[in-house]
This record gives sequence, C-alpha cells and structure tokens, in this order.
Amino acid sequence: MIRKQVALVADLSGTVVFAIEGAMAAVHAGLDLLGVLVLSFMVALGGGIVRDLLIGATPPSAIRDWRYPVLAFVTGLVAFVFHAQIESVPPFLLTTLDAAGLALFAVAGAEKALEFQIHPFIAMLMGAITGCGGGVVRDMLLSRVPMVLVANIYASAALLGAAVLVVGRRWGCPPVVAATLGGLVCFALRVAAVRFGWQLPKIV
Amino acid sequence: MIRKQVALVADLSGTVVFAIEGAMAAVHAGLDLLGVLVLSFMVALGGGIVRDLLIGATPPSAIRDWRYPVLAFVTGLVAFVFHAQIESVPPFLLTTLDAAGLALFAVAGAEKALEFQIHPFIAMLMGAITGCGGGVVRDMLLSRVPMVLVANIYASAALLGAAVLVVGRRWGCPPVVAATLGGLVCFALRVAAVRFGWQLPKIV
Amino acid sequence: MIRKQVALVADLSGTVVFAIEGAMAAVHAGLDLLGVLVLSFMVALGGGIVRDLLIGATPPSAIRDWRYPVLAFVTGLVAFVFHAQIESVPPFLLTTLDAAGLALFAVAGAEKALEFQIHPFIAMLMGAITGCGGGVVRDMLLSRVPMVLVANIYASAALLGAAVLVVGRRWGCPPVVAATLGGLVCFALRVAAVRFGWQLPKIV
Repeated sequence: MIRKQVALVADLSGTVVFAIEGAMAAVHAGLDLLGVLVLSFMVALGGGIVRDLLIGATPPSAIRDWRYPVLAFVTGLVAFVFHAQIESVPPFLLTTLDAAGLALFAVAGAEKALEFQIHPFIAMLMGAITGCGGGVVRDMLLSRVPMVLVANIYASAALLGAAVLVVGRRWGCPPVVAATLGGLVCFALRVAAVRFGWQLPKIV
Repeated sequence: MIRKQVALVADLSGTVVFAIEGAMAAVHAGLDLLGVLVLSFMVALGGGIVRDLLIGATPPSAIRDWRYPVLAFVTGLVAFVFHAQIESVPPFLLTTLDAAGLALFAVAGAEKALEFQIHPFIAMLMGAITGCGGGVVRDMLLSRVPMVLVANIYASAALLGAAVLVVGRRWGCPPVVAATLGGLVCFALRVAAVRFGWQLPKIV
Repeated sequence: MIRKQVALVADLSGTVVFAIEGAMAAVHAGLDLLGVLVLSFMVALGGGIVRDLLIGATPPSAIRDWRYPVLAFVTGLVAFVFHAQIESVPPFLLTTLDAAGLALFAVAGAEKALEFQIHPFIAMLMGAITGCGGGVVRDMLLSRVPMVLVANIYASAALLGAAVLVVGRRWGCPPVVAATLGGLVCFALRVAAVRFGWQLPKIV
C-alpha cells in the first residue's frame, strides 16, 4: 500500500520535472503557448506512451488516466508564466533534478515491462525508452538530432539503472530493493558523467 | 442510418481535403511521385492512425478499411497531375476547406475516443490529435518544426471544437447537435483567426 | 519446417544488413556509440515494429523475441569497431545487399499482414513499410527528409514486390512461389534502378 503511494509520488514528481524541461525547450525554440503545452506533455509522457505501445499496454497510462496529462499541462502553463524565474535556477540543480527524473522513469519503465511478461533484456531497453523517449520526441519535434544520440552519458545511465533492477529481480532481491538500487545507480552515473564530463566513444 | 452516411461523407471529404494539402506540400518540397503519395496518405490519415493507436483501436481504421488509403492515394495522384491548377485556387478557399477538414476530424476524433470509453478530457485531446496529427507528421517528414506548434490558432480551434462536443454530450445534448456545434465552433474560430491574424501568446 | 527455417534465416540476414547500414549512417552523422546502437536497432527493426503496431500484432516481434534486438546491437557494435573496413566495401556490393534486405523485408512484411487478415491492398503497403520504415525512422532521427521520399526507385520496388506476392497468393500460387517471385521482382527492380539511374517523376 505504502509502496504504491511512494511509486505514484515518484512518478508524478518525474512528470513535473520533465514537463518543466519540455516547456523551457519550447520557450527557447520560440513556440507559442500551445507548443509549450504540447512539449510539456511529450517530454513528460512521451517515453511512457512509446513504452506502453511497444509492450502492448494500450491505451497507454497517460491516455487512460487523465491526471497525468492534466499535471503535465498545468506544469507547462506554470513554467510558461514563470519562465524567467526558472531561467535563474542554477544549472547543477536542473541537472540533478533531471537525473532524478531519469532514474525514476528508467526504473518504473523496466518494472512495468517485467509486469507485462516482457523478456528481462527487452525490459531493460523499455526502461531506457521510458527515461529518454520524451527527450527524443522533443528533439524530433524541434527538428534536431536527438541529443541523447550524440553526446554524453544519458541513455547509458538509464540502461544501466534498468539493468540493475532487472538483474536484481532475477537474483531474488525484493522489488523495492532492486528498484532503489537501480535508481541510485542511474542517478549517480548521470550526475557523475555531467560532473566529470564523461563521454561515450565516438568515431571522429 | 442517415446519420452514419452523413458521418461517412464528412470523413471522406476531410480525407480528400487533407490529402490534397499533403500532396501540395510534397510537391513544394521537391519530393517525387512516391513522396507525394506518402504525404497525401500521412496528412489525410496520420492523425486518425495516431489516435487509434493511442486509444487502442487497432488496427486503425485507415489500415482496416482499404477505402481510406485508396482515396488518399487517388487524391494525391490527381493533385500531382493537376498541381498547377491547384496552385491557382484562391488562398481563402484553401483556408476555408482546411478549416472544414479540421473541424470534421476534430469532432469525429473526439467522438470515436468517447466510444472507446476514453475519459472526456483525453477525448478532447484525441480530437485535436486527429485534426492536427497529420500535419505534424508531414512537418516531421519534411524535417521542419511542426507549424501547429509555432504559429496561430489551429490546434486550439480543434481543441475547443472537441471540447464543445465533449461538454455537449456530457450535458445530454443529442450527439448530432453536440457534433454540429463542436464542428461549427472549431471552423468559425479557425477562419476568424486567419482572417484577423489572431495568435496565441509567445515569449519572445 | 524447412520453410520456417529458410524464412528465419532470411529474416536474420536482412536484420544484419540493415543494422550495418544503420550503424554506418550513425558513424557518418557523428553519433556516439549509443547512437550507433540505436540506429542499428531502428534501421533493422523499425519497419517491422511500425508494421506490427499498425496491424495490431502487439507486442511487435522485435520486442517479443530478444534475439532480434540482440542481433541488431551486436551487429551495430561490430560495425562500429570495423567501420573503416566496411567503408572500403565496394558500393555495388552494398547496394546489392541492401536490395536483398529490402526484398526480404517487403515480402516477409506483406506475408505477416496477410496472416493477420489485413486486406491485400493494405498488406502490400505493410510490405513496403516493413522494407522502408527503418530508413525513414533513421532519416527522421538524423533530422533530414527521408531519402525514400525524394529520390529514385526504392519504396516502389518494395511495393511492387509485395504486390506480386499478394496477387500471386490471390491467384492460388503456393506461398513459397509467391514469396520468391515477389522478392525477385523487388530485388531486380531495385538493382536495375540503381544501375540505370531510374527515377520516379517529380515536379521541378
């Protein structure tokens, strides 16, 4: 019971963080209010929608449960109005919140895929898609190459966190422990990668 | 019975209008005949396909019923051959037809979502996606930021029209009345927005 | 029994060819290792995933069967490491392999759609989507207009091959014969189009 509520709060917090990021990207790209709301929605919920379509959980939760889109839209509207204040938030705080959102979504996404009897290896991919999918959709809508494909450790952190959860479950860890460990690994790797400028190999 | 036929005629008319627009966008972007047919298909049917995937109505109608894609392709082919004639159609006529197509799709999309037991608030979003989704896919294929996110009152008109339908149904309006009202509101708002240059707020 | 194995080998070969192409496109676009793996996955499996979502075969095979994504990722990794060697493969060999992959996917895609009771005309489209979808997703991720919409005979070859299969089945050909004929037609048309520089009409 309490576990369910923790999961819900985590999910809603991730939604708020990602919706703010979507709104700010839209403001910077010169979109109008509607564009801001659409990007809030897509960044916050796009990854989960793609995951749900792929694992056959239709309609996706974001369509089945009106609280998710409403939360994304309200957050987007608030970010639109207070965008100047949000600009002045120190970058390391944004990075940290984003890493937390990524960790929450990666773990929740992998867990949901396992519930739907998806093979553990694919469940790990679904965790990464849940965490990164919204950002990919954002970049595709803004007509630029998805950042996650080009630079630094982002999807890799999501993959690793989801992998920790999947392997932990396989080894008989209690679900809460596996999820917490997976989330911490994803969060720590992402924050460290930003802090120390780690990059994946690339052919120049 | 007659209502079903009116709905079908409306749906097919919307398909033709949007397929012509897709074909002309493809011609202007320098695509070849195949690209023209693909864009006719996507603009005419892409919004409905996305809606059907999201509400779990699979396979989508455009895949289930061969008449929709055939109509889109034939329209695209005709538009390819007669593109010079279509260029000379006065812009206000194109805008009016487009607004009519938008209204028809927004209303039909919201109705279908309600039929599939989708929450009224989400059904309103599904109406807007049905009306605007094809254009978004078109712009993504042409590698540009979807017009609907940047400029003027387009998706907002679809949202409002769908909202009128949804609220009307909620209040016990007969379905035909709710649909007609919703369609008229969407159409009128869109035409007025073009006529008077209304815009949504935007941060410069 | 043997037929099933031939089909599986064909499918896996197509996956390898397309995964290599995805990896090379990613290397040329300056993506990092993760981007290379994602593009290998998307080019190899994206067309099939879109087809499966559209015909209602969820979860798509690429999500249901872990061997497909693993094969795509391993191929992508190998292509990343040996990209210099792959660069030196003569272009006509690449074109030929690509035409073979296109033929295999177009035929397999149309067959799967028929199995799912999709109308023959739509099954033909599904064959083309299976063959070309991955490349379209690649170009959208790389933020450029899908090549298949702009230039030369590619999707048309897939459409024709799938059409031959569908009509052959309709006329009572044994499935193997219809599939082989369809595949050969697609392959031959694609290779000839490259060799002789055939193009579809286009409005200049």
